[in-house]
Amino acid sequence: MERTIDREQPHYFGAGPALLPADVLKEAALDLVNYSGDNLGIGEISHRDKRAVKVIDDTKANLSKLLDIPETHEVFFMQGGGTTGFSSIAYNLAANYATKNNGETPKLAYAVTGGWSQKANEEAKRLGFQTQVVVNTKDIKYTDIPPYSEWTPIEKGTAYLYVADNETVHGNEFKDIPTDYLPEGVELVADMSSNILSKKIDVSKYGLIMAGAQKNIGLAGLTIYIIKKSLLEQASDDQLVSWGIALPPIAFHYPTVVKNNSTYNTIPIFTCQILKLVTEKLIKEGGIEEIQKTNEKKAEILYGALEKYPNFYKLAVKEKARSNMNVVFTLHNAELEPEFIKQAEAQQLFGLKGHRSVGGMRASIYNAVTLETTEKLVDFVKQFAENNS
Amino acid sequence: MERTIDREQPHYFGAGPALLPADVLKEAALDLVNYSGDNLGIGEISHRDKRAVKVIDDTKANLSKLLDIPETHEVFFMQGGGTTGFSSIAYNLAANYATKNNGETPKLAYAVTGGWSQKANEEAKRLGFQTQVVVNTKDIKYTDIPPYSEWTPIEKGTAYLYVADNETVHGNEFKDIPTDYLPEGVELVADMSSNILSKKIDVSKYGLIMAGAQKNIGLAGLTIYIIKKSLLEQASDDQLVSWGIALPPIAFHYPTVVKNNSTYNTIPIFTCQILKLVTEKLIKEGGIEEIQKTNEKKAEILYGALEKYPNFYKLAVKEKARSNMNVVFTLHNAELEPEFIKQAEAQQLFGLKGHRSVGGMRASIYNAVTLETTEKLVDFVKQFAENNS
Repeated sequence: MERTIDREQPHYFGAGPALLPADVLKEAALDLVNYSGDNLGIGEISHRDKRAVKVIDDTKANLSKLLDIPETHEVFFMQGGGTTGFSSIAYNLAANYATKNNGETPKLAYAVTGGWSQKANEEAKRLGFQTQVVVNTKDIKYTDIPPYSEWTPIEKGTAYLYVADNETVHGNEFKDIPTDYLPEGVELVADMSSNILSKKIDVSKYGLIMAGAQKNIGLAGLTIYIIKKSLLEQASDDQLVSWGIALPPIAFHYPTVVKNNSTYNTIPIFTCQILKLVTEKLIKEGGIEEIQKTNEKKAEILYGALEKYPNFYKLAVKEKARSNMNVVFTLHNAELEPEFIKQAEAQQLFGLKGHRSVGGMRASIYNAVTLETTEKLVDFVKQFAENNS
Repeated sequence: MERTIDREQPHYFGAGPALLPADVLKEAALDLVNYSGDNLGIGEISHRDKRAVKVIDDTKANLSKLLDIPETHEVFFMQGGGTTGFSSIAYNLAANYATKNNGETPKLAYAVTGGWSQKANEEAKRLGFQTQVVVNTKDIKYTDIPPYSEWTPIEKGTAYLYVADNETVHGNEFKDIPTDYLPEGVELVADMSSNILSKKIDVSKYGLIMAGAQKNIGLAGLTIYIIKKSLLEQASDDQLVSWGIALPPIAFHYPTVVKNNSTYNTIPIFTCQILKLVTEKLIKEGGIEEIQKTNEKKAEILYGALEKYPNFYKLAVKEKARSNMNVVFTLHNAELEPEFIKQAEAQQLFGLKGHRSVGGMRASIYNAVTLETTEKLVDFVKQFAENNS
């Protein structure tokens, strides 16, 4: 059979790299071969070519529009994913803090609410930064986010509080911002790799937002940073070293990345083009408000179906902390779980197996997963419970 | 006009990101939308999915076959490009040296033969490593590679000698290996970002080969590392820190990357798929031997044409050091250069402008640039000289 760049809509709930809209992929496929009619693909031109620069600038403009990013903040891109973000954030914001505080080495505060924030804290510690864990829900298997009033107060001399706004593996998500909890001058840093562009956020409240593209909005290999411009200020390398502040690899040095419009370390421009197309489509379809409505509806009907059979399905994460992106659940009768996966696949519902560290099931209902696909899963969830209760 | 994934062969000499074979791009375009017939693209599945793992393993196997990589060496991939390689090499090989030498901090030797090796040396120094520049051809504008007998001897306690095997901007290339020059125990490290898979190499002679994919063989965003397995050994982080050895970000830590089959920091699997297809095609078409013959032929006829008009074209790089990949030249009458570019473009010959730091012209004749395209340029080079002499 001749292969084409058209496809039927898959029903896929993988956690990442994850589903992308078929029309975006189709256009990107054409762009890969012939971008502007001169028989060259978007991946074959210099990152300093004006067409490449326009892709970068358009993507930044789309993100600014969708997230209503204020003038106080700057958008830039880096290669990597969350793992590179963990180190680059600690290096750069510690350098900025020292620069503003006569060389004082800051402390870094971490909210450990799942596997990803735990790794972020580990990485900062590993690189020699002094971290304070202000909340750690490991003992309750990351099934809740306690109220801020129960968190340990942040110590003096802290540069930032780091949170993973959505924990992909454990399926919890922050529903508000620790405004009252945060001491004056401590910046809020959020990893939004698995929920960026899924809901409205107030960017002005964040010092830094970091988001790998490969879950909700793109391919692996590109990470979005949205930073408060004042956090870009850094003393010279020599000065930082004299203060005992570790330097990042130059490819991770935010001021250098921003000065070079994200091209210092050759940007994967094809990956950026996909992000451009995804953000264009979101704008065209009504912006964050519309996608948020759909996402909330999807989460509501799926959690609703699971809750309808409390003796059959188990939702470990407390309701107020549940993720709208990654719906994590198990069966009370764990022996039935392989059968659940098998029968789901027979109905063309794929990617439902939970993360290997957690087990059970996980339905990731990112932006590209349609309401229709979610409804199909809802029907199956009900039917499977009815048939096996 | 309806867009398709077929295209006419472009005549494009850009230095990177650069031309890729149209049949590879076409297949990759299809893979982006529907990889294995289940309506999911290769970029939408988990990097731990067995299909993704197979892409990684197949790409490694293809590279091993093409370059005849011995059992003593390991292939792995990282995000980034040369710029991330500069730091990751210094961090990891210094750690390995200290591990093998009771915590002794090594010196690192650099051959500065162009803009890229100069940047590599700068980055190692910036991160606090003690470097020795054993040769520096900046004064002669990187137009020659002096014989090893004229290089400064490498000091005791040195971990490696770093060379840029091909300097993309300045157009020079190593034609042999410093076998006699290298003291016992000092590893040879080569940046082959712009000539990997263009010619036969003896991998066993290298401690480490690093090559960004975006010039000769792929898209931006993936870097190939071929490392001697014994160089992967590293003491614990704590031990290294106690010796005063700087730790890299965990995403740059070679033992961790290798242990996780290059997926620790989510690998951009679509970019890897393109590399797989490019290497598959090279194998099918006769391997390195065949492509090397074609590349040598291309360089021969292009340099030959330029040399035929010594009063018109200027080849600054000495013959014995000329790159077979990046042919850098100027016109004696520099005022004619814009006209050269303009008339070339009128004949559908694109991407010939020299790097902004060097000026003049540069014809990059990477693997994907056909002999036919090179012949077209040769004809133009002759015709332009005849018409304007």
